[in-house]
Amino acid sequence: MIAARTMAELRDAVRQCTQQEIHRAECPSIGFVPTMGFLHEGHASLMKEAKKQCGIVVLSIFVNPIQFGPNEDLEQYPRDEAHDLAMAEQNGVDIVFLPTAELMYPEPTKTMVQVQGVTAPLCGASRPGHFDGVTTVVAKLFNLVKPDKAFFGMKDAQQVAVIQQMVKDLNFDVEIVPCPIVREGDGLALSSRNIYLSAEEREQALVLSRTLRQVEAWLEQRPDMTAPQLRDNIIKSIQEAPLADIDYVEVMQFPSLEALSPEQALANTDHRVLIALAVRFGRTRLIDNRLLENK
Amino acid sequence: MIAARTMAELRDAVRQCTQQEIHRAECPSIGFVPTMGFLHEGHASLMKEAKKQCGIVVLSIFVNPIQFGPNEDLEQYPRDEAHDLAMAEQNGVDIVFLPTAELMYPEPTKTMVQVQGVTAPLCGASRPGHFDGVTTVVAKLFNLVKPDKAFFGMKDAQQVAVIQQMVKDLNFDVEIVPCPIVREGDGLALSSRNIYLSAEEREQALVLSRTLRQVEAWLEQRPDMTAPQLRDNIIKSIQEAPLADIDYVEVMQFPSLEALSPEQALANTDHRVLIALAVRFGRTRLIDNRLLENK
Repeated sequence: MIAARTMAELRDAVRQCTQQEIHRAECPSIGFVPTMGFLHEGHASLMKEAKKQCGIVVLSIFVNPIQFGPNEDLEQYPRDEAHDLAMAEQNGVDIVFLPTAELMYPEPTKTMVQVQGVTAPLCGASRPGHFDGVTTVVAKLFNLVKPDKAFFGMKDAQQVAVIQQMVKDLNFDVEIVPCPIVREGDGLALSSRNIYLSAEEREQALVLSRTLRQVEAWLEQRPDMTAPQLRDNIIKSIQEAPLADIDYVEVMQFPSLEALSPEQALANTDHRVLIALAVRFGRTRLIDNRLLENK
Repeated sequence: MIAARTMAELRDAVRQCTQQEIHRAECPSIGFVPTMGFLHEGHASLMKEAKKQCGIVVLSIFVNPIQFGPNEDLEQYPRDEAHDLAMAEQNGVDIVFLPTAELMYPEPTKTMVQVQGVTAPLCGASRPGHFDGVTTVVAKLFNLVKPDKAFFGMKDAQQVAVIQQMVKDLNFDVEIVPCPIVREGDGLALSSRNIYLSAEEREQALVLSRTLRQVEAWLEQRPDMTAPQLRDNIIKSIQEAPLADIDYVEVMQFPSLEALSPEQALANTDHRVLIALAVRFGRTRLIDNRLLENK
């Protein structure tokens, strides 16, 4: 595994791996897993999927300052490079790209990639400018790595929708591969931010996955349930945990993230339905979601 | 020469030309000339330069609706595909990409690439949103064509500055090659919009290039001349043409397009100095400019 710390090292590493791959496979393809590091089994599942689908796997570790708001946890965001490198190596990564903020933004960027529409609700509403930072850095990384496929976790379902919209609109020649959420044995969705949780907060945070698991039973019991009714049920269920401070709970179309008809039974909609939520436990904001595939 | 009218045809054409080139050269490089068609000798100079520097030349012809304002000349913009194809062939172009607006924008784009700063003055001030449309379509075309070098005429010097800023900020792996302005024998800068001019307007429009040619003599006569003084001289000179209706005349740093110190003699500045102007003759808006290389 090669650790590349500059653009030139990345370019050389990709060239070297491509030449090695040409001897093995007809058409070496590059799979890309962009991350902010502090890797967990959720990231590992992306690396494994990338290795399954592509001859060369590039992982990036970059805590991107421009996607953090002024009162967010940029400075506190957890970092552990040695652990990350070991985990990347174990999961078959060929190249790890570890740029510094100075390398990615030698001057403050004057150019932003902005996606309208899908960035407006959910985390886009709670975190103004967040997705502009995400799309801008992902565009930069796509231009540096030039992947054939890029792997994103469905834990941030809105991010998947936003990146897919950008790729379509800007004709990036990259296939976006969404990968399923990975959970702890007790249901908590894996997140680098879970380490912030106290034991009590962590226990109560299980209400999120528990509630999302209940959705299908509710819909079976009440086949006429609409999106607003389901949303009310979810809110009530989460509020049973005293430490839960709801940022948002939404039931929307996926991937457009447009509203569903408030009168129509969810059982009758033609859309894929996303149930997305963000809830604070103490100072830690967790997100989780569930995608209902109609038929 | 291949005329590609869909993304798939473009991809196949690039693949085909690359394979042919591999037999001839070690490292075939792709030179790209993005245009809005109605080609003239200015475009021809870009194609020739691309052919000189690159194994494969791709020309695009696309009148990009999103860079036109609501009251601009999108509908009237001149088109002549047969002439353009002949001219491309004569100048060594390998692939002409001729997408329709429906192909480039199957749905209204939700994603825009926006550059701040360099887009604010000059044509950015006169044509709000213009450069957002330019950077967005150029990002799309770069992602489709994947050129190694892209060739732009210095006639739109601000466009060159904006594209260079975008390429740097988003890490596009494309070298921007600015090419000199091409002029008629009498000095008029070539432009597809020149055909709009009446005989009288065309005659009076020569004041632009004549004025720009005078700049060096003025600076020699008055070595202490500042940017505002030069600007005043230029405005007075242009106003001698009764049909000239000045949109802007600016003397700025290039490529940052920031203001020059108003007190400092231009002879003493460390910056490259751009003199840029936009002037209407009748309903036709012409741009022209001159870059002073200090030392």
